[in-house]
Amino acid sequence: MTATLALTGSMLIGAADVRGSAGEVRGVNPATGDALEPAYGLGDESDVDRAVSLAWQAFPTYRSISGKTRAAFLTTVADNIDALGDTLVSRVAAETGIAEPRVRMELARTTNQLRLFASVAAAGRYLGSRLDTPNPDRAPLPKPDLRQRKIPFGPVAVFSASNFPLAFSVAGGDTASALAAGAPVVVKAHSAHPGTSELVGRAIRAAVQAHDLPEGVFSLLFGSGKDLGTALVKHPRIAAVGFTGSRSGGLALVAAAASRPVPIPVYAEMSSVNPVILLPGALAEQGAALGTAFVASLTTSAGQLCTNPGLVFALGDPAEFLTAAGDAVRGTPAAAMLSDGIRKSYVDGMSRLVDAAGVSEVAVGGADNTIAACGQAGLFVTDGDTFLAEPALQEEVFGATSLVVRVRDTAQLEEILDTLEGQLTATVHAVESDHETAAALLPRLELLAGRVLFGGWPTGVEVGHAVVHGGPFPATSAPSTTSVGTLAIERWLRPVAYQNVPNALLPDELRDGNPLGVPRLRDGEPE
Amino acid sequence: MTATLALTGSMLIGAADVRGSAGEVRGVNPATGDALEPAYGLGDESDVDRAVSLAWQAFPTYRSISGKTRAAFLTTVADNIDALGDTLVSRVAAETGIAEPRVRMELARTTNQLRLFASVAAAGRYLGSRLDTPNPDRAPLPKPDLRQRKIPFGPVAVFSASNFPLAFSVAGGDTASALAAGAPVVVKAHSAHPGTSELVGRAIRAAVQAHDLPEGVFSLLFGSGKDLGTALVKHPRIAAVGFTGSRSGGLALVAAAASRPVPIPVYAEMSSVNPVILLPGALAEQGAALGTAFVASLTTSAGQLCTNPGLVFALGDPAEFLTAAGDAVRGTPAAAMLSDGIRKSYVDGMSRLVDAAGVSEVAVGGADNTIAACGQAGLFVTDGDTFLAEPALQEEVFGATSLVVRVRDTAQLEEILDTLEGQLTATVHAVESDHETAAALLPRLELLAGRVLFGGWPTGVEVGHAVVHGGPFPATSAPSTTSVGTLAIERWLRPVAYQNVPNALLPDELRDGNPLGVPRLRDGEPE
Repeated sequence: MTATLALTGSMLIGAADVRGSAGEVRGVNPATGDALEPAYGLGDESDVDRAVSLAWQAFPTYRSISGKTRAAFLTTVADNIDALGDTLVSRVAAETGIAEPRVRMELARTTNQLRLFASVAAAGRYLGSRLDTPNPDRAPLPKPDLRQRKIPFGPVAVFSASNFPLAFSVAGGDTASALAAGAPVVVKAHSAHPGTSELVGRAIRAAVQAHDLPEGVFSLLFGSGKDLGTALVKHPRIAAVGFTGSRSGGLALVAAAASRPVPIPVYAEMSSVNPVILLPGALAEQGAALGTAFVASLTTSAGQLCTNPGLVFALGDPAEFLTAAGDAVRGTPAAAMLSDGIRKSYVDGMSRLVDAAGVSEVAVGGADNTIAACGQAGLFVTDGDTFLAEPALQEEVFGATSLVVRVRDTAQLEEILDTLEGQLTATVHAVESDHETAAALLPRLELLAGRVLFGGWPTGVEVGHAVVHGGPFPATSAPSTTSVGTLAIERWLRPVAYQNVPNALLPDELRDGNPLGVPRLRDGEPE
Repeated sequence: MTATLALTGSMLIGAADVRGSAGEVRGVNPATGDALEPAYGLGDESDVDRAVSLAWQAFPTYRSISGKTRAAFLTTVADNIDALGDTLVSRVAAETGIAEPRVRMELARTTNQLRLFASVAAAGRYLGSRLDTPNPDRAPLPKPDLRQRKIPFGPVAVFSASNFPLAFSVAGGDTASALAAGAPVVVKAHSAHPGTSELVGRAIRAAVQAHDLPEGVFSLLFGSGKDLGTALVKHPRIAAVGFTGSRSGGLALVAAAASRPVPIPVYAEMSSVNPVILLPGALAEQGAALGTAFVASLTTSAGQLCTNPGLVFALGDPAEFLTAAGDAVRGTPAAAMLSDGIRKSYVDGMSRLVDAAGVSEVAVGGADNTIAACGQAGLFVTDGDTFLAEPALQEEVFGATSLVVRVRDTAQLEEILDTLEGQLTATVHAVESDHETAAALLPRLELLAGRVLFGGWPTGVEVGHAVVHGGPFPATSAPSTTSVGTLAIERWLRPVAYQNVPNALLPDELRDGNPLGVPRLRDGEPE
């Protein structure tokens, strides 16, 4: 793996290193403000065309190899990334300001996620194989032999997120699920962590080569979202798009995809304030403990998580909660944010709360003028009437700031929940005496969010089979899906039916006798 | 059921008969041109609001009743429609010109489809229940208790098609699958068969009442697509849209849905020419028989089927095929088309082929000036070079006209397939000696269409578990789905995850011990 450690500043287009000529970008250490070596050349439309054309060439082969072969490939990707070890961890920390212990956790999550999707590819349940028994003697018309499986749409464009430089980036969930599905991937790297992107990209390329796969299975591009990103979404051979990032960025890609001669799906995970509801019994019995635990969640990764709890609705007396949370916020040291652009947006968002009528400051966290992109935690409080009168108060402030809303009664809480936009998560804190209220709220919360939590905090998304990281617009552009967990593979697939196709010409997963041993439904029931 | 047989000309908004005041429309017998009684009052935005508000009110109850209760309701809908018997059959025939034997087949298909979706609702596989085993002792963080199921988005708007006045109309596949999923339905009737729509609508309403369901579970509106239809798609409480019809109509709904403050999915089945490929061996051994069988498929229902074979690619000598097909077309009597508007579009489409350079007429069918909306079958022929040079030749002509393309060689066939738009179906005719060629074509056909047929003809869609009636744009606006078959239920559902929710507060399908006995995955494997 030593060959992958020398950063070149090049894009990885199939097997070729290609230096972009449309400007340059460097990683910047957000703690120090120092630009990092090397400079990365930005690509243009011709680079997009080269990468996507290679992906299209790779598609027939890559989608037709067995799930077990794709599983072996994904496992090698995971092994190669793990092998980068400290080299990768220190580069991520330098480019993002994320503390090394958290980077290590994210690294483990990322490679575990790749191995999970390897197991999904190998098991073959994602193929959705179905067979309906024919009946040539049926009157008035014979019943045909119909069989169904899912195939990938085609090459997928993945847009990396800034806040998870590993888990939602070059080899993150979108890439892992698309590669597991049999779709070649072209990644647009996030400009805030180009060195991390190159390291991980080379690890994927090495796995492509180790498994003798067509070079176009994976490419990595650097460039502006507006120019290169739009060109990528509009390329006629791109068949679907995965994105994690801002609402404005996601909506721009959705609009670009919809304006194509052949529109394509965009799976954009965008914006969420992750409401937390504190019920009266929980506030009374656990107020102080909840306040402390809440701030631990709020300030994780300087609050730069899509599941950060940005709104808290307190039904009952929040005095102890606010005291403990205020103390915890004041005790939170300043932290480097991911980039100076994110810091500026965060300061703007916090200022809106400072200036908002009817909103009071509970506490702010420590400042540190030796940190370049410095973020201070913040906690504010208002009441339900003010919240209902000012829709802007539910806008996401990306960072470690939250707004506590004192809610008058259950009716006002329900009114508030009905005004909220779609969310990734909704959390309820309840003790036994609150269960009746909680039970009545749950149907509303299901309609509001992709994941409903009882106790605990929304940050920390478990990667598995049952998780949903998705939800109604604007949490995502495609609420019928998830971007985390094994169900995410379905985003890249569509069903195809085969009618009276001779056994020898059928794909293996649909042949008589089930030679691949994949799960299948016959006449609607497991075979 | 006698109460349902007196047609009133009213919309059915929940339990109320509401006479629309935005103009009138009558059914017209396309064979005679006679207007039929009664006149139907067209609704406006206030009627949309009333229907959708009732649907929204019904939603919490309707989505939370058990799948078995919804199954019983759907079964009653089917029974009520069957009980309409000859009253319904003769009204359909009068409003559409479809021959009574075909109406009876469509009626059986429609009520079988309702019963199939009843079985889907009862079985509960569509819930996609998943449970991941928690691990409180895991380090560094405990593994939470995560469970997942699917819930309906919310009230669904269904737009009826003209060409299947039962199977893709008021109680057609979109309605059946949405009701099975737990979504209330508001149908916009097709103006070409209002009496049929009222009869079927009353059958559904009677079932709603028989099962003591909230009245808003079903409403039926009459009105213009541009005004009432757009208002329906834009209503904030409508959560998803099903549509079968023209490309322009479907794209207008897609655009309306995308322009909402909260965009919603539109499942539009729109346009397909359903290419048929005749390989050399099949042409040589079966040319004449294929020609005759082809025309039988082409002229079914006056060619007004979304799966009508509008393009035939002949690799090899098509002389015998063309002779037999030409004879069959000449022997095809004129038929009433569904409406005079469809007849006009069909005549225009046929004229484009008559006038196209390099395209020759093979045969036209009989004419009959006693039929008001009279359609004549037509068969044309061209060569691959002409076809490649003129993209307009692949546009759908909705009716019993097809174009045979003499293809030079396999390379030209592949070139042609790569230029085709997305299709509902693609069909190959091959004998043993053609299998190598067919095998090489299959991967292209999978990417082109939602259903690949080997032998036979694309008309006649089998309703079951393995069928796909969908395909890449513009066949549909949502290629990851199907509008026919049990998989269609997934269009109305989204996954929700429950994290650490106490057992007593969980939905039944996720509780410990699986009290509903629905299929579930635990840690990714069947429980």
